[in-house]
Amino acid sequence: MEVTHIEHIGIAVKSLEAAIPVWEQMLGTKCYNIEEVAEQRVRTAFFKVGNSKIELLEATSPESAIAKHIEARGEGVQHIAFAVDNLQGSLDELAEGGIRLIDAKPRKGAEGLNIAFIHPKSTGGVLTELCCE
Amino acid sequence: MEVTHIEHIGIAVKSLEAAIPVWEQMLGTKCYNIEEVAEQRVRTAFFKVGNSKIELLEATSPESAIAKHIEARGEGVQHIAFAVDNLQGSLDELAEGGIRLIDAKPRKGAEGLNIAFIHPKSTGGVLTELCCE
Repeated sequence: MEVTHIEHIGIAVKSLEAAIPVWEQMLGTKCYNIEEVAEQRVRTAFFKVGNSKIELLEATSPESAIAKHIEARGEGVQHIAFAVDNLQGSLDELAEGGIRLIDAKPRKGAEGLNIAFIHPKSTGGVLTELCCE
Repeated sequence: MEVTHIEHIGIAVKSLEAAIPVWEQMLGTKCYNIEEVAEQRVRTAFFKVGNSKIELLEATSPESAIAKHIEARGEGVQHIAFAVDNLQGSLDELAEGGIRLIDAKPRKGAEGLNIAFIHPKSTGGVLTELCCE
């Protein structure tokens, strides 16, 4: 497998409305999309940064992974996502190499991407996502 | 100001020797540089991912910000760094806009870059670095 680029950095925030102007100022670019991902119980806001994105994540339920992240660790980076050309092949290769997967099969994420999460136990505490269009 | 791309993601690790093979497997690429930044009391290991990098950071002293991060929050993402074309101009613009800076003036970081840190209080808990060649 080979990662082609950083697809996005996911940042847990308490409020999109409060965080969007801050990141617009920091990045010098406007938020171009706000989307709700019902399955993940989050609302997301996206900013383009080169060929990567910053994704702000706000919980829509106390059961959301984002709400739990903020409760345990406060606001901040929740996951990083890498683009790969062959998602299922990459997952199979990582699993064969002893990396623990959260998703052995791709599922649908925000912006229509196919996504799968790797367990942070296998990546030094970093929740990592692989993405493919 | 405008950020051109994600320059790198800085990940705090207890041991470069333990973490490098894990990230080589995850990214499908070899670590291309290991460098000590004495002023920051860290050893760093770099991986290329598209036009961005993953930077692993190991403390060389218990007083290092990396040692303190691991003590407080465990291993994981410690900062994110964005490339800008005009570092001093970007810092001045952010400060004028009410963003709190750690470094009002650029200083030298790893790989010969000019860097400056923004205070995480102004960026929703995310320690953010701006970089310029």
